[in-house]
Amino acid sequence: MRQAMACAEVGDDVMGEDPTVNELQEMAAEMFGMEAALFVPSGTMGNLIAVMVHCRERGDEVIMGDLSHLHVYEQGGSAQLAGVHSRTITNLPDGTFDLDQLVSKIRHGYPDPHFPRTRLICLENTHNIQGGRVLPLAFLKEVRSIADEHGLRVHMDGARLMNAAVVLGVSPATILQHTHTVSVCMSKGLGAPIGSILAGPQDFISRALRCRKALGGGMRQAGIIAVAGKLALTEMVDRMEEDHRNAKTFAQALLDCEPSSFTLDLASVETNILRFHLCDPSLSQSDFCERMAQVGEGEEASLGQGVQVLMYPHVGGSVRAVWHLDISQEDTQMAIRKLQLVAKQLQQSRVK
Amino acid sequence: MRQAMACAEVGDDVMGEDPTVNELQEMAAEMFGMEAALFVPSGTMGNLIAVMVHCRERGDEVIMGDLSHLHVYEQGGSAQLAGVHSRTITNLPDGTFDLDQLVSKIRHGYPDPHFPRTRLICLENTHNIQGGRVLPLAFLKEVRSIADEHGLRVHMDGARLMNAAVVLGVSPATILQHTHTVSVCMSKGLGAPIGSILAGPQDFISRALRCRKALGGGMRQAGIIAVAGKLALTEMVDRMEEDHRNAKTFAQALLDCEPSSFTLDLASVETNILRFHLCDPSLSQSDFCERMAQVGEGEEASLGQGVQVLMYPHVGGSVRAVWHLDISQEDTQMAIRKLQLVAKQLQQSRVK
Amino acid sequence: MRQAMACAEVGDDVMGEDPTVNELQEMAAEMFGMEAALFVPSGTMGNLIAVMVHCRERGDEVIMGDLSHLHVYEQGGSAQLAGVHSRTITNLPDGTFDLDQLVSKIRHGYPDPHFPRTRLICLENTHNIQGGRVLPLAFLKEVRSIADEHGLRVHMDGARLMNAAVVLGVSPATILQHTHTVSVCMSKGLGAPIGSILAGPQDFISRALRCRKALGGGMRQAGIIAVAGKLALTEMVDRMEEDHRNAKTFAQALLDCEPSSFTLDLASVETNILRFHLCDPSLSQSDFCERMAQVGEGEEASLGQGVQVLMYPHVGGSVRAVWHLDISQEDTQMAIRKLQLVAKQLQQSRVK
Amino acid sequence: MRQAMACAEVGDDVMGEDPTVNELQEMAAEMFGMEAALFVPSGTMGNLIAVMVHCRERGDEVIMGDLSHLHVYEQGGSAQLAGVHSRTITNLPDGTFDLDQLVSKIRHGYPDPHFPRTRLICLENTHNIQGGRVLPLAFLKEVRSIADEHGLRVHMDGARLMNAAVVLGVSPATILQHTHTVSVCMSKGLGAPIGSILAGPQDFISRALRCRKALGGGMRQAGIIAVAGKLALTEMVDRMEEDHRNAKTFAQALLDCEPSSFTLDLASVETNILRFHLCDPSLSQSDFCERMAQVGEGEEASLGQGVQVLMYPHVGGSVRAVWHLDISQEDTQMAIRKLQLVAKQLQQSRVK
Repeated sequence: MRQAMACAEVGDDVMGEDPTVNELQEMAAEMFGMEAALFVPSGTMGNLIAVMVHCRERGDEVIMGDLSHLHVYEQGGSAQLAGVHSRTITNLPDGTFDLDQLVSKIRHGYPDPHFPRTRLICLENTHNIQGGRVLPLAFLKEVRSIADEHGLRVHMDGARLMNAAVVLGVSPATILQHTHTVSVCMSKGLGAPIGSILAGPQDFISRALRCRKALGGGMRQAGIIAVAGKLALTEMVDRMEEDHRNAKTFAQALLDCEPSSFTLDLASVETNILRFHLCDPSLSQSDFCERMAQVGEGEEASLGQGVQVLMYPHVGGSVRAVWHLDISQEDTQMAIRKLQLVAKQLQQSRVK
Repeated sequence: MRQAMACAEVGDDVMGEDPTVNELQEMAAEMFGMEAALFVPSGTMGNLIAVMVHCRERGDEVIMGDLSHLHVYEQGGSAQLAGVHSRTITNLPDGTFDLDQLVSKIRHGYPDPHFPRTRLICLENTHNIQGGRVLPLAFLKEVRSIADEHGLRVHMDGARLMNAAVVLGVSPATILQHTHTVSVCMSKGLGAPIGSILAGPQDFISRALRCRKALGGGMRQAGIIAVAGKLALTEMVDRMEEDHRNAKTFAQALLDCEPSSFTLDLASVETNILRFHLCDPSLSQSDFCERMAQVGEGEEASLGQGVQVLMYPHVGGSVRAVWHLDISQEDTQMAIRKLQLVAKQLQQSRVK
Repeated sequence: MRQAMACAEVGDDVMGEDPTVNELQEMAAEMFGMEAALFVPSGTMGNLIAVMVHCRERGDEVIMGDLSHLHVYEQGGSAQLAGVHSRTITNLPDGTFDLDQLVSKIRHGYPDPHFPRTRLICLENTHNIQGGRVLPLAFLKEVRSIADEHGLRVHMDGARLMNAAVVLGVSPATILQHTHTVSVCMSKGLGAPIGSILAGPQDFISRALRCRKALGGGMRQAGIIAVAGKLALTEMVDRMEEDHRNAKTFAQALLDCEPSSFTLDLASVETNILRFHLCDPSLSQSDFCERMAQVGEGEEASLGQGVQVLMYPHVGGSVRAVWHLDISQEDTQMAIRKLQLVAKQLQQSRVK
Repeated sequence: MRQAMACAEVGDDVMGEDPTVNELQEMAAEMFGMEAALFVPSGTMGNLIAVMVHCRERGDEVIMGDLSHLHVYEQGGSAQLAGVHSRTITNLPDGTFDLDQLVSKIRHGYPDPHFPRTRLICLENTHNIQGGRVLPLAFLKEVRSIADEHGLRVHMDGARLMNAAVVLGVSPATILQHTHTVSVCMSKGLGAPIGSILAGPQDFISRALRCRKALGGGMRQAGIIAVAGKLALTEMVDRMEEDHRNAKTFAQALLDCEPSSFTLDLASVETNILRFHLCDPSLSQSDFCERMAQVGEGEEASLGQGVQVLMYPHVGGSVRAVWHLDISQEDTQMAIRKLQLVAKQLQQSRVK
């Protein structure tokens, strides 16, 4: 991928003249079953532009899950920069939400000026905070049907869309037939260093291009990074299954630990994100993560010197671990051995 | 009140030179235990300005109940015009919310740029959607304590603050000792035609004055309506008890109806707002409201010709009725007789 | 007017149910030759809403004179609250601007995303900073023709529109045939205490109603002040000629002063605003204004005790005086006598 | 540069953990004499963030030249996204402006709420629209002195800052001692494919980091492009003199053309941008540019087959040409030969 970047043919993408960017955009549009696509510097910008274009009249409103990345992690950009009001629906543990609650939140704005006008429903797939959960196709179909009935648009924050496609065993276009637009990260599991794709109808992308420029996301010789995006879409998707397999293997090892130290719902480990809880309430998440990061130093040097296990405290008292292309099956086995050692040490310190 | 308006001494309030406005502002500040106050055209503008002043840095966030007027009924102005992101907590039936949920939503923004920075907690007292519920002083104290601990401000949407003060039997200042700022409507139960008071610390009001000007809420000879605000605060508060009594009387009549046709929680009728449900699921809220509005015409003319009973369908399938200074005890008795007739007619039509 | 306010029939204007407000809006719409009208708390809000409705897509731009009230005196609300970029054209001394410069600033936004899209041209009539100057009908016609050619809208900040109509001897509708929308103050020369009228096509007003609500400009029983607006439009227009005559009389007196102490262009005194310069460069504008405000006290008591002459320093080193319905012909004569005394005293102090 | 990109050490820059980005930022901060620096995707984002951070209170205002890139070419983002009002001063042909006019536009906002509060002065160096003009150090010093006196900040849009430093023969820090913050493009003349540096005080950069995240400019493994930025700053600055020399050579050739076909001010060609006018009023700018782009095809093949001369119509009826690292001295000579041929052909067609 690095070598491809060194050889990429480029042009001025602000003028639409970078051939590599154009190729990436065409490839992505076709793969996602959309009319057109636009390369943007980040998933956050992709989502922000989607909100800006779909909710483009004063007093427009977006509905999204209360645990969606857009609502929780994007610094409130939809309000701060786009002036768009959000209403939330309760995200269920599988990343979906109750459809009756969705319908109850839709507002038409006319004739009553007290109300914003709902324009957009945002979905997240796979759902980050809920642990990489894959939204079922049947759910997507129902959301789209509600949207159509009320004249709304559906945008998917598909930062991890390709993970969902791999799990479901369908093309991304099969998933996206139920949405109007999508934002997909080329980085993360797909391994490109920078950039996301925003895709949708032609007139949506024409407007998105203007928003990208205003936000300062127009990049000159962007082909240099777009070439990595092309490789990500063509060569990196298949290997995602390995991430999912490694996550499941590690999840099983957590449950198998003796003494029993962790809880998690194995069925919820669908992709490359794993969330689990510690059984011992006296042990803090961050202490545990720190211990896992350090194990392998000093006398335990046989345990993967130079290979560090990084996990992070997460919402609701959980610990979060993520797999990507730099973590092999062997790394995962090494991490399991470290886990077993840490669990044993923690047990011993409790006994004392 | 009208005659006072005809005689009010006025000046140019944009220049701070309207003596009547100045008097109203001083009177309100003292009554509310605040340093200063500002007269604004509406409660919506009062709340919007409060959000603008408290959340005045980019990326600031406000936390409020998911059923608060500010979140539901003000066209999303805090996002649309002020660029402020909202996060909501679940409003309980008494207008309060769970304090642990409140704490879990607070975010400091630094050092992690993914997050907005929480600056403000908004309370609503009495709580409109939840049926005019009065927030307990102990709850306010706890919210303020959490706010202080996290360096946040507390604003109260006190559109119906005086109703709460009357029910609690305390001065408004006793309630407002737990908040930094408040917005109180001079219209509604207090009977003035136009205007609200925004009150708080001196530097808050100095900034609010600038926001009011930018929004176009600076009015020239505003003394003409401020004089009504003065009367509202001095002479209209005591009569609110009558509204509360009338609402309770009507609520009891709903429960006493034969055959039993309505459900409500009598204990929840604390002030001048009443919400109830129809027992008959085949009867729509709007059909019932329409029937109540029409009864008394034609052959039923003895039932209060010229006095119309206006109720409106409300959230969650309820019907909503509100009492104010133009509805006397006699009007309420007349409304009860109409209700009894309608209930009987509906029963007969069901039997057929 | 005060008595009419005490007797006004009112309703809830947020719901469109205030009969007096409705009457004022219909009367104004007809008078201005527009489809519909909306009562708003201030001229600043009227102009802000006009910008919000005309420039309602992201990246829209407004063109206006660099000395227009909207650009200079409204706290930058069009950018701050509406997110609309402004480009300015140089205001000429008569309030107009060069039409070639106007055309050179128009930008279409497509296909080049570097540019905003021009949507709106704002005119001000009479022009405040330029001294109450009346825009010629021929100028308006040409501006409208350019607007039509480029698909733009024309809004007139007609805070003092009626002064212009009186000077031109035409109906306001004759002036407004060249604009799409207008904002007219009921206060100022027209003498109502509060409020402005925003008028335009029906769909513009429907959108404006929503913006007014979001800004917090929806007032409950607004009939109480709208009734004064009705009187302003029906009974106050004719008396504006007196203001204009008084301003001219005073202007002539300034020129006639012995010794010669003031400069001004008599031809530029078209309405009720007068701007002049002091000949003596050692005399500050504010010292002169202060002296004029104080004369008549103490030993000069014969000079209009209780009648104070208020003038204010203005842009470009000028002094500004404004006439309105509370300044009679006699008051003007008294002001001239004060002026003559002050001029003489200043001359004497210079001699010493 | 491409090879360096293939080998760059990277990390997650959103977490501040990309070592190459950190190195670039430290190098740039030192070079620019600033406390800290931030890598952003584009100069437009750098300028937008500067406006967002400097003008961070509601009602803040920025003053800039009426021909500045920020005002003309950035889609009005400062108003659209940042809600900041702009006031402009007339840009003189050398990119500076009149200092008295600057002072006359400064407004303090308090106590008069009609006015925004001026917070920021933006300069552009070299000045793009005015033809790559270098701002004199004495001018910068005076602007800074005015800013200090009024408590304002100075930001420099230094997209082409290094060109100015080369011409003045001083370090960039010598120029930037007169500004608080600067945005410098790594692309354009410096030859990196993507990215700009925003530099300033530490607390400015801390706030800028949050703005960058909200705008979606936080990029994951940004080291891949930052490495090119490092090379740009260390190895590309010296070669800018060649661009300037080539531009001057071509400018002289334009003047020397027989018959005389072009006008320009040779003294104004200071850097790599050249603007000139056509003498023949019947010849459109775009026809001329098209002819220059085509010459060398067909029978004229000896004239640089494969080397195309791209010039563009520019403001005020001028034609604009820009030199950068892909245009050698030989290319410039070839362009001169093409120019001479075209001039001759145009002369012949006129004669006919």
